[in-house]
Amino acid sequence: MIYMDHAATTPVREEVIEAMEPYFNKYFGNPSTIYKVGREAKQGMEEARKKVADLIGANSEEIVFTNGGTEADNMAIKGVAFKNKALGNHIITSQIEHPAVAETCNFLEKFGFEITYLPVYNEGIVKVEDLKKAITDKTILITIMHVNSEIGTIQPIKEIGEIAREKGIVFHTDAVQSVGKIPVNVDNLNVDLLSISSHKIYGPKGVGALYVRKGIRLEPFIHGGGQEKNLNSGTENVSGIVGLGKASELAKKELNSNMKHLSNLKEKLVKEVLEIEESYLNGDIERMIPGTANFHFVGIEGEGLVLLLDGNGIAGATGSACSSKKLEVSPVLKAIGLDDVDAHGSLRLTLGPENTEEEVEKVVEAMKISIERLRSMSPVWNSRN
Amino acid sequence: MIYMDHAATTPVREEVIEAMEPYFNKYFGNPSTIYKVGREAKQGMEEARKKVADLIGANSEEIVFTNGGTEADNMAIKGVAFKNKALGNHIITSQIEHPAVAETCNFLEKFGFEITYLPVYNEGIVKVEDLKKAITDKTILITIMHVNSEIGTIQPIKEIGEIAREKGIVFHTDAVQSVGKIPVNVDNLNVDLLSISSHKIYGPKGVGALYVRKGIRLEPFIHGGGQEKNLNSGTENVSGIVGLGKASELAKKELNSNMKHLSNLKEKLVKEVLEIEESYLNGDIERMIPGTANFHFVGIEGEGLVLLLDGNGIAGATGSACSSKKLEVSPVLKAIGLDDVDAHGSLRLTLGPENTEEEVEKVVEAMKISIERLRSMSPVWNSRN
Repeated sequence: MIYMDHAATTPVREEVIEAMEPYFNKYFGNPSTIYKVGREAKQGMEEARKKVADLIGANSEEIVFTNGGTEADNMAIKGVAFKNKALGNHIITSQIEHPAVAETCNFLEKFGFEITYLPVYNEGIVKVEDLKKAITDKTILITIMHVNSEIGTIQPIKEIGEIAREKGIVFHTDAVQSVGKIPVNVDNLNVDLLSISSHKIYGPKGVGALYVRKGIRLEPFIHGGGQEKNLNSGTENVSGIVGLGKASELAKKELNSNMKHLSNLKEKLVKEVLEIEESYLNGDIERMIPGTANFHFVGIEGEGLVLLLDGNGIAGATGSACSSKKLEVSPVLKAIGLDDVDAHGSLRLTLGPENTEEEVEKVVEAMKISIERLRSMSPVWNSRN
Repeated sequence: MIYMDHAATTPVREEVIEAMEPYFNKYFGNPSTIYKVGREAKQGMEEARKKVADLIGANSEEIVFTNGGTEADNMAIKGVAFKNKALGNHIITSQIEHPAVAETCNFLEKFGFEITYLPVYNEGIVKVEDLKKAITDKTILITIMHVNSEIGTIQPIKEIGEIAREKGIVFHTDAVQSVGKIPVNVDNLNVDLLSISSHKIYGPKGVGALYVRKGIRLEPFIHGGGQEKNLNSGTENVSGIVGLGKASELAKKELNSNMKHLSNLKEKLVKEVLEIEESYLNGDIERMIPGTANFHFVGIEGEGLVLLLDGNGIAGATGSACSSKKLEVSPVLKAIGLDDVDAHGSLRLTLGPENTEEEVEKVVEAMKISIERLRSMSPVWNSRN
């Protein structure tokens, strides 16, 4: 198999599995208990918290563990909204957020919140001027993702954060697609809240974290025994947390070499794919993370392409992988100006450190054959050519 | 180590770890994707869903995976409350619920809900007559736990469920402490919603399930990609879910032999412990699960006893293990009529299938010595004797 859907998920690394294993049945205690096997579990969890904090330049006490990036987004956005309802009911976000943010904002509309969705233009990037204009004296939260999951564009988080700070507005960023892939430092980026997912960085599924800057108050998200500073009750997923810790440590150590490797691979991939007739790269390549390339091809259906590639042992995505079983057009691709037909013809390839040049060559070759086959059956293509 | 805190958590069984392993880096795909490694992950998850359903006599489609029992409780209670707010604002629960239920009900009071907390008397059991009297035409939800986590008493769920059904009120039970320990069948018990935790039945931490009877509508709990019937968005914890499935399968297979073994062990434990002067068993022993025994000893602090036992390599709990770092008196022990002093002198021992008669003897011996030592230092004890 050639796996090129690293934005959807990643395998758990051997080192991570090894780190987790003792927490299944050796240090298995409930971290809230006071006897030895409980204290050991607690200690493993706190060491992991330090490693996650280190990856993003935070303090351990600012890390709240969650069951994933989606829960982190929900906790952050609902937490700020319900805590600060008396101060204002306006939230600013973008048109290309992950559903974890977009659907949460939709939900809040039921409770009287008003949401502004900033446009991203053809480049797939929010304009800071638009943000400035959108702020009102009712704005209590800005939530804009760091890196888009579908097209890989990097948003101007630092600049947005400066404005948010100047205006005293809480600023959250979904950094699920940036942490471990490009440098992320919560102070440099001026963020108050930042969501992390473990399974995007070779950690286990079912765990994530929310960075909560000291002083930022949230309404508790899950009620119960009071774990995780009373924000996220429930017995902690200790082995998962330890896995996220190890994955964070590795991601930090290997960040620079991975970025270099992925940049080289992507350069080759994009160059060779764009040799295909009527093929386009979606989003501004100058402001994109190294590993992501989202193309569209005139006259084909992305789903067909994904299935043909799958037949060749290649894993790639169309639309958003998180909802790719839905047949609606990706809102992200629409937001960058693609019409329905072009948006349906998209393919996202997201590279990982274990991918090789040889794999890129094989994938491009399979793509060429598959696209030709799909186009030969396509009335759209045949009427155009 | 002698581990007797199985109500707090359990180690992950070898068979469960083995079942999980391939899902870390072999069948590691995102279950929402359509290519092979994603379909494999999805398949593992759906097989696990069947096993969880089988354990409680449900259909697979009625199982929603969560990140644990606490999340299942939150999802059920908030889900019913927010969905049915227009129909009524009254919720009935008991005075001895787990914080996952009690704190969630507290939270709902902020949104205009009114909560009735039914008493449990010295026996630690809700009276069906009290429930009948509490129901009003505004009652939209009854949430009463199946088995109490601290004292192990079994609530009359079947009878409560009959009344709920008669009145057309949705009925949820937190079955975290009963599933896998005594027979649990959602039809026999007349429940609409039932919470399950994996790590209480030798599965991994960080996963659980909510049974949602066909036709019961809930407000989505976590917003995003729409996973788990749109109730619990976020990439699924596939390996954890597979682990819960395996643990469920084993729990079902071994239920009867475990119940017998634990009944025998507990009979011995209770008999020998109650030989200690001024020692009492909390709750009605005739209506209690096999594995749980909660004692109180006049003239000692439970925390001191837990620490002395820990020094002997024995893991036991005082108050609720989920919040045992708090020094407040357990609300459950107060609800069954213990005063503050007696409630502070509690010890909970919860047995598991791997415990032996020899371990019980060692624990009782260590308890006798520890209690004597604590009493020799206790002004309460010395003033009474």
